Amino acid sequence: MLSTNPHAFEVTVSAPVNIAVVKYWGKRDTSLLLPTNSSLSLTLSQDDLRSTTTVRADPSFERDRLWLNGKEEDVTKNKRMVNVVRELRALRQRMEQDDASLEKLSAQKLHVCSQNNFPTAAGLASSASGFAALTFGIAHAIGVADKVSRSDLSRLARLGSGSACRSLFGGFVAWEMGSRPDGVDSVAVQVADESHWPDMEALVLVASDARKDTPSTAGMQLTVETSELLQERIRQVPQRMQDMKQAIANKDYDAFAELTMMDSNQFHAVCLDTFPPITYLNDVSRAVIHLITAYNALFTGDGRSGRGKKGYRAAYTFDAGPNAVLYILKEHVPEVLALVNRFFPPPEGEGERKEYFGRAANFMGSENVKAVDDMVSRIGMKPLERGSLRRIISTSVGDGPRILARGWNAHVSLLGEDGLPKTEIA
Amino acid sequence: MLSTNPHAFEVTVSAPVNIAVVKYWGKRDTSLLLPTNSSLSLTLSQDDLRSTTTVRADPSFERDRLWLNGKEEDVTKNKRMVNVVRELRALRQRMEQDDASLEKLSAQKLHVCSQNNFPTAAGLASSASGFAALTFGIAHAIGVADKVSRSDLSRLARLGSGSACRSLFGGFVAWEMGSRPDGVDSVAVQVADESHWPDMEALVLVASDARKDTPSTAGMQLTVETSELLQERIRQVPQRMQDMKQAIANKDYDAFAELTMMDSNQFHAVCLDTFPPITYLNDVSRAVIHLITAYNALFTGDGRSGRGKKGYRAAYTFDAGPNAVLYILKEHVPEVLALVNRFFPPPEGEGERKEYFGRAANFMGSENVKAVDDMVSRIGMKPLERGSLRRIISTSVGDGPRILARGWNAHVSLLGEDGLPKTEIA
Repeated sequence: MLSTNPHAFEVTVSAPVNIAVVKYWGKRDTSLLLPTNSSLSLTLSQDDLRSTTTVRADPSFERDRLWLNGKEEDVTKNKRMVNVVRELRALRQRMEQDDASLEKLSAQKLHVCSQNNFPTAAGLASSASGFAALTFGIAHAIGVADKVSRSDLSRLARLGSGSACRSLFGGFVAWEMGSRPDGVDSVAVQVADESHWPDMEALVLVASDARKDTPSTAGMQLTVETSELLQERIRQVPQRMQDMKQAIANKDYDAFAELTMMDSNQFHAVCLDTFPPITYLNDVSRAVIHLITAYNALFTGDGRSGRGKKGYRAAYTFDAGPNAVLYILKEHVPEVLALVNRFFPPPEGEGERKEYFGRAANFMGSENVKAVDDMVSRIGMKPLERGSLRRIISTSVGDGPRILARGWNAHVSLLGEDGLPKTEIA
Repeated sequence: MLSTNPHAFEVTVSAPVNIAVVKYWGKRDTSLLLPTNSSLSLTLSQDDLRSTTTVRADPSFERDRLWLNGKEEDVTKNKRMVNVVRELRALRQRMEQDDASLEKLSAQKLHVCSQNNFPTAAGLASSASGFAALTFGIAHAIGVADKVSRSDLSRLARLGSGSACRSLFGGFVAWEMGSRPDGVDSVAVQVADESHWPDMEALVLVASDARKDTPSTAGMQLTVETSELLQERIRQVPQRMQDMKQAIANKDYDAFAELTMMDSNQFHAVCLDTFPPITYLNDVSRAVIHLITAYNALFTGDGRSGRGKKGYRAAYTFDAGPNAVLYILKEHVPEVLALVNRFFPPPEGEGERKEYFGRAANFMGSENVKAVDDMVSRIGMKPLERGSLRRIISTSVGDGPRILARGWNAHVSLLGEDGLPKTEIA
């Protein structure tokens, strides 16, 4: 296809964040990013959290260039990106060999401009949505997206960042670890789409903590090398994957919540069993765990939280940092938010509050105040200092990557007509 | 033996605290207090930390009575104490059956008065030293101590509090889990006495934390019931016990330090893998771990801490709470204290400082200030707020239980001539 539009081989896409409920931690192959265990995540709505990426191929470009959140990166030093781009170009090259009429896009250089709509300070891993958008964007820009399955694309995204493969799908997504040494079978598959369990909501409680965490790439390999308990976790994950898929298929919130919390705990347990130990959970995280445990215990029969209980109202999970992600059914979001506000006092200024709550404000005011008062006194936890949480992000389960524009679009593209970022921030 | 002294069947003893380097966590029998794994501890000096107990048998006493830290306890409700007393009386009864001339002490009631010289606020488990003193004291008061081995006495102390059995010996003490259902072989044995490794010092860093911890008795059984990783730990402990004994025999500090830290980490990992999770380590504990890891890394070759390294200078271990116990060779105590003071600022007032440091003051001022400055800048950790630590307890490895007085002694006994505590605090 030869186009008369000078920027026809450009596409702008967005890709979602995903938060796992069966965690990925440990690689069996560090260059192919093959995991030691399968994992499963929920894709969060791009209406709230997304990476947006514009990719353009052009014969006039002299070299591949990448701008990330307004700052140019040295592409050649980003080995993982080089791997993703090489694989996608190889696919294009085979297409061009089969059909000589195709534009020789495999030989053209790419300009890629990407940005996240959430601050790095939010503590959300941006590499998953970022590499998903990059892979999806390049595949569409150079016309290979329709030639490979979505799972194949997820395999390529995996080369950039393991968990990125799960952001190629919406809804509930498994990353099946696979068994082949070349990793061809280590791909993401959709377990259920975003319409399957419409009541599932997520609250991200962003903790204030200046401490620099161990980067997950280095951390997980230290766990593989030194943790004596990791191998036992690896043996247990297949059963947990099966149980989690069943819980999702049945929309069984009790089972889902229990498995989610147990897996998060176990992930942080193997981090602690690493030497030197990795401790992502801080005192704010511990207080969230304590609050959710005590809150659930009000509804799980004998006043205890514990395995096999019924009546869970909230489930926490923590990635490689202190922020909690709570998965909650819609009907309980107002009361959970009310409890969070009591024990983690929000800022007082109106403007600060607006930014702090965002979409969560929609849920506030509809809770049963008397019931919340009663719960607060029964939970009996000492409230934390104001400022312990930096903000609350309210979101839901969402779809997979979106195409925002095919060809250059003045309103949507992150690149200007000249192929450089519209606004470059130093 | 019939005595003319009306308080001949009284004894005052003291028993030491012990801090494990291979942790006890989990019972296979909750009434006999039989553990799921063997453990190993260092006995700390009674010059610094001790439980002191006076026990008197007297025909005029109407019932068994117990005063703990100045407050009378209902003995009948303390099932564990009832078990210890019953076993000791049974031993006495057999002696009296064999020798009719013996005073019928097995039929006399006991008054027991016990106190710790460290505040509960210090966060040190007092049950180990307390039950060791109780068992040792009653055994001597009713004349059975010489009829049984020290290991047999440790078995009786175990019925009161599992880790109490280790406080029946000085030095380096293993609690061999045993295999018999009746627990007769689940006893403490001395691995090396207190003179074996005279350079070994201990610093207890008492963290300020108002949060109430999960009691260890309840916590460990929740771990047994719910942790999927505990069984793997149980499989690994025999090898670690063997390695630890070897390290102690060889006075190999590198191996000792690494095993100690790894075992503490793993103990807290299985706590976190418990459901609901148990989190004893707080942000102050995490900062201690970070400091010791970074400090060791300055001396372990490639600037990293990690398994199999040489050059360790400090080893942390945490029991069921946020307080760190550091095992350090004497020559490095001044610099470790100097580093702790830089990153955990001590109180400013002179009186407060005196109480805060105690014996640790002896080590201060002899460090190489320039070297410490250099380490501080290379460690590059942000100092914590003043008040993050409540106090520092400096101690060393010490001996087993001591007899402070046989018969009533006006200066030493905790009971007055009348058989009641000298001073009763409400």
